[in-house]
Amino acid sequence: MFVSINELDRHVEKAVTVRGWVRHHRKSGKIQFIVMRDGTGVAQIVMARNDVDEAVFEAAKTLTQESSISVTGTVQQNPRNNKCEIVASTLEIIHISEPFPITPKEHGTEFLMDNRHLWFRSQRQWAILRIRHRLAKAIRDFFDDRGYTNIDSPILTPTAAEGTSTLFAVDYFGEQAFLSQSGQLYLEPAVAAFGKVYCFGPTFRAEKSKTRRHLTEFWMVEPEIAFAHLSDIMDLAQEFIHYLISQVIEHNTPELEILERDIDTLKQSLQPFIRMTYSEAVAQLHALGSDIEWGSDFGGDDETLLTQQYDQPIIVHRFPKEFKAFYMEPDPEDPRLVLGMDVLAPEGYGEVIGGGERASSIDFLLDQIKKHELSEEPYSWYLDVRRYGSFPHAGFGLGLERAVAWICKLPHVRETIPYPRMLYRLKP
Amino acid sequence: MFVSINELDRHVEKAVTVRGWVRHHRKSGKIQFIVMRDGTGVAQIVMARNDVDEAVFEAAKTLTQESSISVTGTVQQNPRNNKCEIVASTLEIIHISEPFPITPKEHGTEFLMDNRHLWFRSQRQWAILRIRHRLAKAIRDFFDDRGYTNIDSPILTPTAAEGTSTLFAVDYFGEQAFLSQSGQLYLEPAVAAFGKVYCFGPTFRAEKSKTRRHLTEFWMVEPEIAFAHLSDIMDLAQEFIHYLISQVIEHNTPELEILERDIDTLKQSLQPFIRMTYSEAVAQLHALGSDIEWGSDFGGDDETLLTQQYDQPIIVHRFPKEFKAFYMEPDPEDPRLVLGMDVLAPEGYGEVIGGGERASSIDFLLDQIKKHELSEEPYSWYLDVRRYGSFPHAGFGLGLERAVAWICKLPHVRETIPYPRMLYRLKP
Repeated sequence: MFVSINELDRHVEKAVTVRGWVRHHRKSGKIQFIVMRDGTGVAQIVMARNDVDEAVFEAAKTLTQESSISVTGTVQQNPRNNKCEIVASTLEIIHISEPFPITPKEHGTEFLMDNRHLWFRSQRQWAILRIRHRLAKAIRDFFDDRGYTNIDSPILTPTAAEGTSTLFAVDYFGEQAFLSQSGQLYLEPAVAAFGKVYCFGPTFRAEKSKTRRHLTEFWMVEPEIAFAHLSDIMDLAQEFIHYLISQVIEHNTPELEILERDIDTLKQSLQPFIRMTYSEAVAQLHALGSDIEWGSDFGGDDETLLTQQYDQPIIVHRFPKEFKAFYMEPDPEDPRLVLGMDVLAPEGYGEVIGGGERASSIDFLLDQIKKHELSEEPYSWYLDVRRYGSFPHAGFGLGLERAVAWICKLPHVRETIPYPRMLYRLKP
Repeated sequence: MFVSINELDRHVEKAVTVRGWVRHHRKSGKIQFIVMRDGTGVAQIVMARNDVDEAVFEAAKTLTQESSISVTGTVQQNPRNNKCEIVASTLEIIHISEPFPITPKEHGTEFLMDNRHLWFRSQRQWAILRIRHRLAKAIRDFFDDRGYTNIDSPILTPTAAEGTSTLFAVDYFGEQAFLSQSGQLYLEPAVAAFGKVYCFGPTFRAEKSKTRRHLTEFWMVEPEIAFAHLSDIMDLAQEFIHYLISQVIEHNTPELEILERDIDTLKQSLQPFIRMTYSEAVAQLHALGSDIEWGSDFGGDDETLLTQQYDQPIIVHRFPKEFKAFYMEPDPEDPRLVLGMDVLAPEGYGEVIGGGERASSIDFLLDQIKKHELSEEPYSWYLDVRRYGSFPHAGFGLGLERAVAWICKLPHVRETIPYPRMLYRLKP
């Protein structure tokens, strides 16, 4: 019976067959120990000379790291560590691996990135991508369970959503198209049809800077809600992140342990988030020695300084309109401000969510488009949301890779996605 | 208390507030009937002159199609049709809509496509996209529940996966990149790390033909399984489609009724699928009058002819190698054939799944790359799967939009995605 390694504990004292790849191999004249993995977990195979055919025992001696094998034997619980191992009755070699490039010794980052397609066979990369999967699933479950409709926004777009400096251009049958930077403009019309929607897919920024926080291709989830105001999405963002962290802790503690992630520190983010206005944040930064000027966006250093003051995330809200998008709803209590909000993750990770309330007045938006020196025609369909039964609405975006980096406590986003794309990195 | 229309039946005889948009409005001197929708459903508002302030009653007379409103009243079950309606105690007008371009009269396809961002407010489009969401959720649940790891394949790629004639080119910081046509090449290395994987995201084909079955941007799910053979994925494809149809019938019968989809016909596909080899299919086509030659791929007419013979899907397997991809495993029993399979949907819909077993021998693949006049270097990382512990594996791809078109019985895929992209169609 074929079983996977993560199910061995249901088959103790029974005969099973497992298939996978050799991680380590120790041999003596009488016994061989093979540590194998199958994608679900890792198990030790114990093969005694007396238990198997001599030809099998001899052939097994030739196994190299990453050779593929099929092993039949009896599942035993090792009394020393309670782990299940297999006492082999036979072993079939499927393929003897050539010398595997990634060995237990240290390798440089460029070498590992060039061999990304092999690197994720190693335990740490495996654990990170399992947590990525859990987060992606939790993201969808969160919105599906709350009555949101998944509306896929297009990747090929004629208009720039967030400025034109970081666009990838595509030749679309002779016409110019751009890779989407955000699905928001496409979600707002959908909200009038479905009430609550989200998109979750790849997004693109032609970032020319090499930083530990930027990929050119990354996944973003964006909920958008009809009749919601700023305070509603601040509550939603907190509930959402609480859910994501809870799901990872509930299902992926073994992976967090492989990554040596301190779970108690992570649990601090299950507290209510700190909330402060942009102006309060600037005042606090001044007290901490920053020279940020009121009216400027936070730099990475400011975010780090601020987030180090608290164990849980911070929601900063009500920003100066100068550095925010043209479609943000103005603050009725202070015309210098817009009703935007960012969620900053602790431990120096900084912004993981950005969002806000969208302007619902067509006259205000037409004025904004003029002030930002944009042309009206490409936004005409977007403006229709305000022509035909306009309504307050709000939403936000969370970058999956930044969330993975924070929750796994990784120094760089390049390990958070199966095949990272960065400046100078398009392969494998 | 704010409630959504699909929850009204939990609040019978209670006071609630609903928010949404006006679909129809009938008025007389003493009473007004407003049919409103909120994205979750449709409900009738009954407003009697004696129940509300006179100013409210008068203002409501100005409501136009798609105006946004907030209505407070008592939920009543209408004894004639058992539907919940609201007897209004007050109504707030949020915004009076300009004349809505889409009215109950008939409109041309181009007009509706130009107004796609408004069109999906109409009931039929709403129902289709709700079923799309259900299918997307069912796709993920199916694989998540069976221990697959979601591995996102990249969109920006340096290599062409399925021929070079239908590629969209991207300027990647001066280097040439292409939009992905399939995640398969990226999944095969991941299978050696995770055992069972899938990707589900947008894919791109620069199709210059205008047909009812082609989009330039569409979503595809691709599972890939280590140690699986052709027969395993034929079983998996059947189980998968059975699950998708069951989920739609279980959760979306109201939407199927809006679309006037015959559910009994759909249920025919819950039977075991018909299975036949390519050679058997050609023989049957000849008997039906087709002049297809052995060795040619099926045309759309052949697929239609064949699928009309059966009530459930057909799995056609073991194709001539000539028209299949270079990486397919040869049939050990007939060297003219490869171990590929297609699933053809009934009712004339044709191919919804394509897949097969992947070649696991490096020597065979190197030979194939030569025969197909491909260059080896771009595939070097892909070939590594056969260098380091090679193993049999298989997988398939299902196009979401074709599945939606079939399950909803639509004449054209353009209605199956929120913002369709086709030749001459990049907006909105």
